[in-house]
Amino acid sequence: MPNVRRYTLSLSCPDRTGIVAAVSSFIAANNGWIVEANHHADATTKHFFMRQEILADSLPFDIAQFRVLFTPIAEQFDMQWRITDSAVKKRVVLLVSKQEHCLYDIFSRWQSDDLDVDIPCVISNHETLRGFVEWHGIPFHYVPVTAATKDEAYAEIAQLFDEVQGDVMVLARYMQILNPALCQRYAGRIINIHHSFLPSFIGAKPYHQAFERGVKLIGATCHYVTEDLDQGQIIEQDVIRINHSDQVDDLVRYGKDIEKAVLARGLRYHLEDRALVHGNKTVIFR
Amino acid sequence: MPNVRRYTLSLSCPDRTGIVAAVSSFIAANNGWIVEANHHADATTKHFFMRQEILADSLPFDIAQFRVLFTPIAEQFDMQWRITDSAVKKRVVLLVSKQEHCLYDIFSRWQSDDLDVDIPCVISNHETLRGFVEWHGIPFHYVPVTAATKDEAYAEIAQLFDEVQGDVMVLARYMQILNPALCQRYAGRIINIHHSFLPSFIGAKPYHQAFERGVKLIGATCHYVTEDLDQGQIIEQDVIRINHSDQVDDLVRYGKDIEKAVLARGLRYHLEDRALVHGNKTVIFR
Amino acid sequence: MPNVRRYTLSLSCPDRTGIVAAVSSFIAANNGWIVEANHHADATTKHFFMRQEILADSLPFDIAQFRVLFTPIAEQFDMQWRITDSAVKKRVVLLVSKQEHCLYDIFSRWQSDDLDVDIPCVISNHETLRGFVEWHGIPFHYVPVTAATKDEAYAEIAQLFDEVQGDVMVLARYMQILNPALCQRYAGRIINIHHSFLPSFIGAKPYHQAFERGVKLIGATCHYVTEDLDQGQIIEQDVIRINHSDQVDDLVRYGKDIEKAVLARGLRYHLEDRALVHGNKTVIFR
Amino acid sequence: MPNVRRYTLSLSCPDRTGIVAAVSSFIAANNGWIVEANHHADATTKHFFMRQEILADSLPFDIAQFRVLFTPIAEQFDMQWRITDSAVKKRVVLLVSKQEHCLYDIFSRWQSDDLDVDIPCVISNHETLRGFVEWHGIPFHYVPVTAATKDEAYAEIAQLFDEVQGDVMVLARYMQILNPALCQRYAGRIINIHHSFLPSFIGAKPYHQAFERGVKLIGATCHYVTEDLDQGQIIEQDVIRINHSDQVDDLVRYGKDIEKAVLARGLRYHLEDRALVHGNKTVIFR
Repeated sequence: MPNVRRYTLSLSCPDRTGIVAAVSSFIAANNGWIVEANHHADATTKHFFMRQEILADSLPFDIAQFRVLFTPIAEQFDMQWRITDSAVKKRVVLLVSKQEHCLYDIFSRWQSDDLDVDIPCVISNHETLRGFVEWHGIPFHYVPVTAATKDEAYAEIAQLFDEVQGDVMVLARYMQILNPALCQRYAGRIINIHHSFLPSFIGAKPYHQAFERGVKLIGATCHYVTEDLDQGQIIEQDVIRINHSDQVDDLVRYGKDIEKAVLARGLRYHLEDRALVHGNKTVIFR
Repeated sequence: MPNVRRYTLSLSCPDRTGIVAAVSSFIAANNGWIVEANHHADATTKHFFMRQEILADSLPFDIAQFRVLFTPIAEQFDMQWRITDSAVKKRVVLLVSKQEHCLYDIFSRWQSDDLDVDIPCVISNHETLRGFVEWHGIPFHYVPVTAATKDEAYAEIAQLFDEVQGDVMVLARYMQILNPALCQRYAGRIINIHHSFLPSFIGAKPYHQAFERGVKLIGATCHYVTEDLDQGQIIEQDVIRINHSDQVDDLVRYGKDIEKAVLARGLRYHLEDRALVHGNKTVIFR
Repeated sequence: MPNVRRYTLSLSCPDRTGIVAAVSSFIAANNGWIVEANHHADATTKHFFMRQEILADSLPFDIAQFRVLFTPIAEQFDMQWRITDSAVKKRVVLLVSKQEHCLYDIFSRWQSDDLDVDIPCVISNHETLRGFVEWHGIPFHYVPVTAATKDEAYAEIAQLFDEVQGDVMVLARYMQILNPALCQRYAGRIINIHHSFLPSFIGAKPYHQAFERGVKLIGATCHYVTEDLDQGQIIEQDVIRINHSDQVDDLVRYGKDIEKAVLARGLRYHLEDRALVHGNKTVIFR
Repeated sequence: MPNVRRYTLSLSCPDRTGIVAAVSSFIAANNGWIVEANHHADATTKHFFMRQEILADSLPFDIAQFRVLFTPIAEQFDMQWRITDSAVKKRVVLLVSKQEHCLYDIFSRWQSDDLDVDIPCVISNHETLRGFVEWHGIPFHYVPVTAATKDEAYAEIAQLFDEVQGDVMVLARYMQILNPALCQRYAGRIINIHHSFLPSFIGAKPYHQAFERGVKLIGATCHYVTEDLDQGQIIEQDVIRINHSDQVDDLVRYGKDIEKAVLARGLRYHLEDRALVHGNKTVIFR
């Protein structure tokens, strides 16, 4: 039912009895039709996570009214929660550098409506990909970043992001390390693709590191960006097999395939409210 | 919490609003602590599936009383359902032939308590594996099968299975085709591992078929046994890469690795009530 | 050494002693520096396969002279053989329909020079992708195909392919069944991506077939096109895991990821002369 | 041709022209029938690697004479080389602790002759697995290891290994860190399975580390043992997907499946002389 309007309720709270009953009774009492539901009770942290997709038209009220009516339940259980509407497209701002593989991949998904979002603009520290972006009818902003102008550059990026009311910022092989101000301001809303299987090969030139160590698989990691480099919560990872005949250039080339696939999956989990952050981990309701 | 006693409730019924609310309100009203929950509403068949793990000690009654109290809800929603108790080990009867790889694999898991079941007996049409089985303290029954004595043999197997009150019969590379009587009698309780990626290469000598076709991956399929050969509901599948230098013998050898891994996963899903059958498909709550 | 010019010699012949010695002695006698070498002796068909990459500048003669000097060896062993020059880009003609995912993927690789080929034109039975192709500076030919005009259309495609001196024709989700004349004329030079794990789900709507059967993995197959639908020699395959909650639309979406990855790998093997056809199989020297 | 006797020649040397020609001409001049051949010229280190399987009966001399006749070629090119005879089974000494999964797996392969070796004895620092080992007719040596007696214990293990003329020592989840003396004495002949995807999670309790970091895949690594803990040359690696619902116990359980599979593959590469060590890496001719 990809075209049927639905609300997605996602929440987390300290675990105790009665949470599922309270939420599902509320939905049932209002004749809500649940089309997908996931729960997770974390045994270590005693925290509870839930995600529900409800057919919008099955409810007798709109999303604003849902928020009003649900608030007492949320307060009772001390929930962190949100509800989103599939009819309201999320706004994805892409940050790119010179490499095109993730950009082509995301645009391909967006063109076919497999990725059902708005892309209000693309921001880059190079002019390389302007033509390709603009051909697709999307504004392209060139924001150069140097050691001296880093803070100004990131302030400009924040302003651009706010102007278009971005929901999520995607570092699609952006190759720059954001400053703490930006990381804090948009905590949980910035997604990066790192070209290694974290926590192996943190930092620069991970494919060179992998080549030097002689590993038999290389990987990629999609994670939320935090102030600590490559330490953010992991959303998705995958690996690909290499062998002794592969040089660094080959690793880079193979790596692109896994980078774009992992970024696409991680982004989808975020956009569909399937990725719930808790501490330094994520719960992913697939 | 692997050692904490829990009840597992699994059910399916025609989809409508209020199912989750009814079930979870019942559990919550009795202070039941849900540690794992999964739902699935099938958009095509309009059927609903649910699995809940509840801490046994959080409830004020035992499993017999649970059954009595839950029956009205089950009837209201026309549910097919069952509830099992983690403190009651399931009884797994293994059927083997001459090949040992699946048997060694299952025994290894059972010895380490990763597979927390009773194995009341092993049945085989060959004497080959008697010593290995008996060394583990498990009775071994030799039941030869010939074209002429097939129905008698399967009747004997059924009797052995009933005598030990088997819960599930596992064809661990048994290499014989069961007769319809046995398939019907234990529908949904017989699990087979087929050495191909079904529906490719049904029937005999699938590795020869795969070799002839020149495929680049070979697979294995764990499925419920029905009267139609290799047509039962698929529980789990996986594949492994081969290449042009691999002969049929190599395929057989690689295949064993994937056979035993897929059988182990499929059997686990069944034993933990994670595999719910509907029509010719399964819902697997992992 | 991606930028170092090299010759690639690939050959197959009936197996006997002395083949490797004859070829390598010829290369060594001329001071040829071998950077990559692969052999395969097929035990079933008693056929021998070899691929050698030689640094062009290590030899005292050019490729034309190589061909002259090597011919006696080739005749002695009854070889089918060819030698290609990495300095001469291969010419890849793409056939597409309306779906863009494989086209975006191939163009992304071509833009970054990971796919070091010329794309002299793209041919389609729909106008959908004209703008995207032409923005990249590549001619786009619209050749509609109807049941009545099939043979004329394919004759036109053959003419376009010949005019640009195409080396390989890639059906990048072209969705049309070529006629026998085209298959025969370019045998071993037409590559297709089929959206199933062959030999499962031959023909139309494989994702629907996979959904109906309830498989737990779906796949894609890159193969040479022969007159028998989906029966050509398999170059590469891969699979991706799905589950009970995935509907046909989800399978289509997941499938795209595996289609483009498998096509890219299969195309690379072909372009680098790593795919040697023998009977209904391929030898892939990776 | 699994039962046909063959010699396997493996070698490495500084790269230059003429190596393949010299080796293959020698083999061809003696009518040697090559059934499998692999070369690798490492572009970074300028080192060359080769492996050839030759039908034993195609040569007019035995392996001792081969060694004599080949020595001048080996010296000319400054080769490190060896030749082994498939008719002489390699002798594999297993070191285990209390966990049985790798032992069961290896014994299963050995029982079916998929692993065609002799197992002259099993050594353990616990008595746990004595019965299982001895039932298979294999001597079991209990060698306790304490901090105080470590060197004596490892001296005893070395003596046991030498007495049975062991070819390779396999740490099948042995859980003890060998001392430098043992590592040096049998360099390139001790294989370990580490329960993480190295270089992530070196040292103790890697599954706990993986759980804390919130990775989405866990792995296992088969490597040669050197004096530096978990720094030896990697032979084989693989990973398995986990999710947020998996606790450390689940990781341990899933990890066993990948540990035994990776160890089995790595051991096979070593036994078939497919693993050639160079510096801190391996060339694996599969």
